[in-house]
Amino acid sequence: MIEDLIAEKARYIDSVIDQYLPAEEGLARNVICAMNYSIHAGGKRLRPMLMMESCEMFGGCVEGIINPFMAAIEMIHTYSLCHDDLPAMDNDMYRRGKLSTFAKFGEAMGILAGDGLLNYAFETAMGSFDILEQDGLDEIGSLELSYRIMKALRILADKAGIFGMIGGQVVDIETEDKPAGEVTMDTIMYIHEHKTAAMIESSMMIGATLAGAAREQIETLEEVGSDVGLAFQIMDDILDITGDEDVLGKPTGSDEKNNKVTYVSMKGIDKAREDVNRLSQNAVMRLQNLPGSNSKSGVFLKDLIEYLITRSS
Amino acid sequence: MIEDLIAEKARYIDSVIDQYLPAEEGLARNVICAMNYSIHAGGKRLRPMLMMESCEMFGGCVEGIINPFMAAIEMIHTYSLCHDDLPAMDNDMYRRGKLSTFAKFGEAMGILAGDGLLNYAFETAMGSFDILEQDGLDEIGSLELSYRIMKALRILADKAGIFGMIGGQVVDIETEDKPAGEVTMDTIMYIHEHKTAAMIESSMMIGATLAGAAREQIETLEEVGSDVGLAFQIMDDILDITGDEDVLGKPTGSDEKNNKVTYVSMKGIDKAREDVNRLSQNAVMRLQNLPGSNSKSGVFLKDLIEYLITRSS
Repeated sequence: MIEDLIAEKARYIDSVIDQYLPAEEGLARNVICAMNYSIHAGGKRLRPMLMMESCEMFGGCVEGIINPFMAAIEMIHTYSLCHDDLPAMDNDMYRRGKLSTFAKFGEAMGILAGDGLLNYAFETAMGSFDILEQDGLDEIGSLELSYRIMKALRILADKAGIFGMIGGQVVDIETEDKPAGEVTMDTIMYIHEHKTAAMIESSMMIGATLAGAAREQIETLEEVGSDVGLAFQIMDDILDITGDEDVLGKPTGSDEKNNKVTYVSMKGIDKAREDVNRLSQNAVMRLQNLPGSNSKSGVFLKDLIEYLITRSS
Repeated sequence: MIEDLIAEKARYIDSVIDQYLPAEEGLARNVICAMNYSIHAGGKRLRPMLMMESCEMFGGCVEGIINPFMAAIEMIHTYSLCHDDLPAMDNDMYRRGKLSTFAKFGEAMGILAGDGLLNYAFETAMGSFDILEQDGLDEIGSLELSYRIMKALRILADKAGIFGMIGGQVVDIETEDKPAGEVTMDTIMYIHEHKTAAMIESSMMIGATLAGAAREQIETLEEVGSDVGLAFQIMDDILDITGDEDVLGKPTGSDEKNNKVTYVSMKGIDKAREDVNRLSQNAVMRLQNLPGSNSKSGVFLKDLIEYLITRSS
């Protein structure tokens, strides 16, 4: 039931993203093909979904503003996977059962497609400025909308950068080279909070910001996103041990094989499951203190959070 | 004389950039060290200089707006060098006589420092939004400034992306693998206009945009930037053949050694010199049709353009 709803929303989001992808033409078309290949390689579209629903929960906003941001956040998520897969990073030839971008287009194009996606994410999100010139808004209305867009842009940039997602990736890469005894729980938490949770936070905060939510409400959503992101990542680590390869679409046991220190290897699987439940309950509780939590989108967000921790893939 | 003035301005620009560099602290500090190392590896600071002077020529603007953009354009230029040097790209262990970023910090950190710089450039430029909340501006004033910043941000993003600098880099990389007979003059022009000229155009256009220049004036500066960028790149190719290694600070003859097809190898050195002069004269002529061309900054811009084509390094 919730799976069907999620799948339906993901299809809608795919159609939104497709509107913003660059046309595969011109002398530099190879890099555009590589970018679009990356984006089309699948994925749950979780980040744009959280953004869209967080926006709806606060009463929604004009499509012209949120759609480019939904495409942009997925472009940033995709570039990070594209660079993560490179030989100098995780050296993954496959992702979701398909050749990774560098494996299909060559290493130089893998780097440049990632750069292109990151840059194009900002080009795309800034396209929301167009709304200010189209809508016959008065000056007060334009100023209000321009502030919302500017705030959303800053959240997008800050959470993706060295104090957000990139920072998490840096520490993750460095931690892989360390013996297990030298890795602390603080480091594991830093990695998950930055590499995974920052972009979940950003998605929810941008949705609410574009809908005009108040600062405290956006801060609450940041905390919700942090708990959801952390729970989501621990669940990923659990599935790497307990999951069904056919359902997951990727080999299990990879963390153990790579001697990777994870939340689960540090705390044990029972404590990890307990923490996932606690984080998820926290997130739902915080969400229900927000206005709009009983709306269709508020209820869907709650269901989505609960689904994410019970999923088998 | 002009060299002294350029050096003095470059020192001022260094002090501006330094204000915007991230502090080398936190768990992810290695990537921040790599980013700052890249930025501090030298460079003429030509792009922020063109931005600053183009802004001044149109009457200037508040420091709080232009300074973050000056730092941002240099961060984008630096990230592009950082990724260009990677083993899968040009595989350059040295740049300006120092170890390149990946050679010093490892390949993974070379990729991540580039990603970090590109993302941080947008974070930094978006910092100019702060001015809107500080200045006791009325709504009309705030709206006018927010439009200028938004236009400048879009220029920054568009010119750096797949339809600008990245596009040029993609075609450059692909062209290196082709036999000389298959490379056309159109391709060489595409590479120079995108890889080099786009960021020169962007610098001048952003400066004028922040100063409130009219659209036609910004378009004229785009044409000036295009001519200057092209002349600058052809001059680089000429210096690779005729230059003095000690003055240049890098080995000459590298294009010939790599069998690289260049503007000079296609057209011959005499025709290349002639074209550099023609492009430079065109640029100066266009510049002198703009208001402010007789101001201190207008005259400096003209001198700078003429210097760039007579330089020996």
